[in-house]
Amino acid sequence: MRFVKMHGLGNDFVIFEWKELQGVKDIASFSKRVCDRHFGVGADGVILVAPSDRAPFAMRIFNADGSEAEMCGNGIRCFAVYLWKRGRVADREFPVDTKAGIIVPRVTERNGKLAVKVNMGKPRLRASFIPIDVDAEQVVDYPLQVDGKTFALTAVSMGNPHAVIFDLPGDWEKVGESIEKHPLFPHKTNVEFVKVQNRKEALVKVWERGVGPTLACGTGACAVLVAGVLKGVLDREAQIHLPGGTLLVSWPDNQSDVFMEGPAEEVFEGKLSEEVLKVWK
Amino acid sequence: MRFVKMHGLGNDFVIFEWKELQGVKDIASFSKRVCDRHFGVGADGVILVAPSDRAPFAMRIFNADGSEAEMCGNGIRCFAVYLWKRGRVADREFPVDTKAGIIVPRVTERNGKLAVKVNMGKPRLRASFIPIDVDAEQVVDYPLQVDGKTFALTAVSMGNPHAVIFDLPGDWEKVGESIEKHPLFPHKTNVEFVKVQNRKEALVKVWERGVGPTLACGTGACAVLVAGVLKGVLDREAQIHLPGGTLLVSWPDNQSDVFMEGPAEEVFEGKLSEEVLKVWK
Repeated sequence: MRFVKMHGLGNDFVIFEWKELQGVKDIASFSKRVCDRHFGVGADGVILVAPSDRAPFAMRIFNADGSEAEMCGNGIRCFAVYLWKRGRVADREFPVDTKAGIIVPRVTERNGKLAVKVNMGKPRLRASFIPIDVDAEQVVDYPLQVDGKTFALTAVSMGNPHAVIFDLPGDWEKVGESIEKHPLFPHKTNVEFVKVQNRKEALVKVWERGVGPTLACGTGACAVLVAGVLKGVLDREAQIHLPGGTLLVSWPDNQSDVFMEGPAEEVFEGKLSEEVLKVWK
Repeated sequence: MRFVKMHGLGNDFVIFEWKELQGVKDIASFSKRVCDRHFGVGADGVILVAPSDRAPFAMRIFNADGSEAEMCGNGIRCFAVYLWKRGRVADREFPVDTKAGIIVPRVTERNGKLAVKVNMGKPRLRASFIPIDVDAEQVVDYPLQVDGKTFALTAVSMGNPHAVIFDLPGDWEKVGESIEKHPLFPHKTNVEFVKVQNRKEALVKVWERGVGPTLACGTGACAVLVAGVLKGVLDREAQIHLPGGTLLVSWPDNQSDVFMEGPAEEVFEGKLSEEVLKVWK
């Protein structure tokens, strides 16, 4: 059973062709085994290149715990580069069928390397949409009390909730965990800590809801840019530097969608051994 | 650049043929990149199948931090199965040149799967050899004070120091860390917590010196059997159940070497992409 291992800013995936998995009865348990970093291939998720009746290909993503994800910004960049490098699509821009609807990635080039630009949709700023339990149209610089300190909070939904803090305290992981579970957020929240370097660059640490610190979060980078524009500290296009690498995010105007451009790298191709397949299938 | 990924009880390695690495200038930094679990192949170490003038093959192991290891019990089982499966050795038992001297693994079979039996050498029990700062010939059931509690300590060296505790407290990770750094051990120590199930089986949790909890530690399993024999609670051959799987350990008599038998599994074979090689080489 052949596969390709890729990553987008260190968020890594094992990519299989749909037909390779025909002998697999339980995709959830298969994905768990494949993603195990000591006994399997090791990854954050498994991506299937699947057939679709409304696009040339469908992307299905299974997390390391076996659950199916709707979409993933880093994952779809890998998916697009995988198809483009193999000549499986004729144009640099093509529709992909995902559980979050049709997404249209565009394969580009940055610094001599393949990159992918993805439309991440519109940000939602209304408090009740995020959701955050504050009686306001928009939550910008709201004084949030955490562990005896006050942080200026800007809240953005990119389909999932983000609490953006333009401050990077030394104990940001502890603060992030406290904000994630703060009673103001009925569905909990992702948290981004931002150090603005200039109007076109920001350094960001991400505390992902239910996960903790991660190398990169695409929706988080988009939320940071939107929050930075609302506060007037970032331009409408800026580089968001995450621990795993850099994303270029743009938000042309307040009514428009947010676009994210970033790299996707192929690390190796492989073939599972017969002995593990006997047990895993 | 081709490789094979294997593991022994979850302790995992990327195996390269020596000739594949001819273009690599700095093996330490190459190993670090290969072992990175998000940006590389992901492993605890890199194993090279190298030429030798005193054995058919030499094994060289580089840790994930780029440093070179002398030997590794889980690694040499992978090395032996790798060669045997590929018909690269004529006999099931063959000498391997390592930085810790010539080791002679024997490829066996257990429960229909390939396994490897390795001579792990003689245990050293004298306090000054381990080293442990106790004025005694052997350290068996020594009352060790840790965090306000007393544990019965048996100390064994298998080339590296082991503190074996026949008790498995709920907070064993905390206790393990305290024992590792206890002033009694001038070079610090590995710590094993043991729950004896019967005279032929024991459940073990390992706190590895400088690492923390690990899935499996070959020298630790050997130290547990020796300590169990000295205390009279284990037979001279017993199954040591570790979080990553089971090792069969034997110590024929007090003057003999210790033998360890366990599995080694091939997970996949792979080929690094041209784009990562351009950067990594």
